[in-house]
Amino acid sequence: MTYVKGHGTQNDFVVIADPDAQHDLDVDLVTALCDRQRGIGADGVLRVARSGALVDQGVLDALPPGVAADDWFMDYRNADGSIAEMCGNGVRVFAHYLRSAGLVPDDRFTVGSRAGGKPVVVHASDAVHADVSVEMGAVRIGDESTVMVADESFTGLVVDVGNPHLACVVPDLDAERLAAIDFLLGVHIDAAVFPHGANVELLTPPVRDGGRYLAHMRVFERGVGETRSCGTGLVAAAAAALAGIGEDSGRLVITIPGGRVEVTIRPDGAVLRGPSVLVGDGTLRPGWNA
Amino acid sequence: MTYVKGHGTQNDFVVIADPDAQHDLDVDLVTALCDRQRGIGADGVLRVARSGALVDQGVLDALPPGVAADDWFMDYRNADGSIAEMCGNGVRVFAHYLRSAGLVPDDRFTVGSRAGGKPVVVHASDAVHADVSVEMGAVRIGDESTVMVADESFTGLVVDVGNPHLACVVPDLDAERLAAIDFLLGVHIDAAVFPHGANVELLTPPVRDGGRYLAHMRVFERGVGETRSCGTGLVAAAAAALAGIGEDSGRLVITIPGGRVEVTIRPDGAVLRGPSVLVGDGTLRPGWNA
Repeated sequence: MTYVKGHGTQNDFVVIADPDAQHDLDVDLVTALCDRQRGIGADGVLRVARSGALVDQGVLDALPPGVAADDWFMDYRNADGSIAEMCGNGVRVFAHYLRSAGLVPDDRFTVGSRAGGKPVVVHASDAVHADVSVEMGAVRIGDESTVMVADESFTGLVVDVGNPHLACVVPDLDAERLAAIDFLLGVHIDAAVFPHGANVELLTPPVRDGGRYLAHMRVFERGVGETRSCGTGLVAAAAAALAGIGEDSGRLVITIPGGRVEVTIRPDGAVLRGPSVLVGDGTLRPGWNA
Repeated sequence: MTYVKGHGTQNDFVVIADPDAQHDLDVDLVTALCDRQRGIGADGVLRVARSGALVDQGVLDALPPGVAADDWFMDYRNADGSIAEMCGNGVRVFAHYLRSAGLVPDDRFTVGSRAGGKPVVVHASDAVHADVSVEMGAVRIGDESTVMVADESFTGLVVDVGNPHLACVVPDLDAERLAAIDFLLGVHIDAAVFPHGANVELLTPPVRDGGRYLAHMRVFERGVGETRSCGTGLVAAAAAALAGIGEDSGRLVITIPGGRVEVTIRPDGAVLRGPSVLVGDGTLRPGWNA
C-alpha cells in the first residue's frame, strides 16, 4: 500500500489513492495507519476514491447531495477509525493531492464528502505547497454559554457548523496570554447545552486591518484535546468574532498554532482558505501491521 | 531524501541511510523530520553511516572505544535535535535495518555508538520483523529514593545505566493497577538526589516463571513524559527488581505499553532483547520543509 503524507495547518493526514474503492478501511487498519508510533501517524485517513465506486462497493449508501458519480470523494476516517462527514483542513490537502497527482484538470472542482459536494478553488499549487479555498456551508449562531479552562471561566457563543462549537472571544486577550492558557486538564463545558460535547475555541478580539480582521486562536477538540488547527473551529470562531462586533459578514485572518488561515463569512455560508503541504510519499512493507 | 520508518516496542525512529555522512543533520532538519504533524514523526533519527566517514566529516571527533572505522555507526538524534549517546530500542531497529538492507553479512556484529561499540545479535529477521539482542553495558545500583506520582509516593532504587533512573518495584502492584496510575501531572523526584533529573520506572514485583521472572512496567522519561518503552529504563528496572529479591543476575521478561522485552542481568553487564518492526519506506518531496 502506498500513501502520501500531508497536512493543512498541521492537521495531518495519510492520503490513500484508491480510485475503485478496493481497500477495506476497517477500524484496525485505520487506527494502525494513524498510530504515531507503530504506523505512519496522522489525525486521519483521506481515501481518494470515485464517488460512484464508493456506492458500488457499498461504502456509501447513495451519492450525497451535490455529488456526482465521477467526482472524487474524500472518504474521511478519524484516527480512531470512525467516520467524519467533513474536515475543513483535510479537504484542502485532498484537493491539493488531486491537483498534484493530475487527477483533476482544473483549479476549480467539487470534492465529494458525506456532508455533500464541497466546491474548492486551488489558487496556487506545486508538488509540495498549495493555497486552497473550500466552501464550508452554513453557520448557525446560537446563545451564550460558558466554559471552564483550568480555573478560569470564559463566555462564548454556541455555533453550529455541522458540528457543535463554543467560540469564545476573550476581551483584552492577546496572543501571548492566549499561548499561556493551560489546557492540560481539559475544558469543562455545560453538558445541558452540549449533551454530545463540543469543540471549544478561545480567540483574541478581532483587530481591523484594512478590509479584514486579524485574530489569534487556540482550539480544544471534542474527544481529542488541543490540536494545532480545526477547520470547523476556525469558521465558528470567525462567525462568533464578527457577531461580537455586530457583523454577519466579513473576512478574518486567524493565526493558530499550526499556521494561518483566512475565513470569509457571508450570511449564506463560509469559505475557509489556507495552505496545504504534501510532505512525502511512502510505501508500507507487506505485513507491517501483522 | 529517502528514509525507513521503524520502531522497537513502539519507540519509533526515522532511519536515514547516509553511509558517507553527507547529510547535515542540523537541529532544524531533525526537529522537522521528527515533528509528528508537519514531518514524518518519530522519537528520534537514526543516521546509518560508516564510523570512519563520521570522523572524516567532523561529526565525531574520534572513533569511540570498541568502534572500528568500517563499523556501521548509529548516529542518534533526539526529536529536539540534540544528540543521545545510546538508545536501547533504537539499536535494535538499527541492527534490523542493517540486516534488512543487506549492509551486514552476518547476524552478529558491532554497532558503533557514542557510548562505544555495542555487540548485537539478530536472532531472526525479515523485511518487517526482527528479534534482536544488544549488550547494554554495566548497571550500577545506588541508594533508595522516593518519587511522587499524582498524590502517591513510591520508593525505588537509584540506578545508573549511563543515564540516571529511579526504578520502583511497587509491593502488591498488579498490571491493572499499574495501568490506572495517573502520570498526567508528571512525576516529582528528589532534586537533591537527581540534580539533572531522572527517568522513573514503576513496575510490578517480579513473579517467577521457570528460569525467568515476569513483570509489568511503565516509564516516565526525563524531558519527554510517559513513553511506550525506554531501553535503559527496562535495564534499570530489571536490575532493581532482581536486587529487591537479593539477586545480582537473572532474566526478566517485562511487559510495557509498547510490547514485551527480555532483560538479562549479569554482574558485569546487561543484555536487552526485543522486537524491531520496519513499517515502511518513504521519500520526502523536495522542499517539504521550506
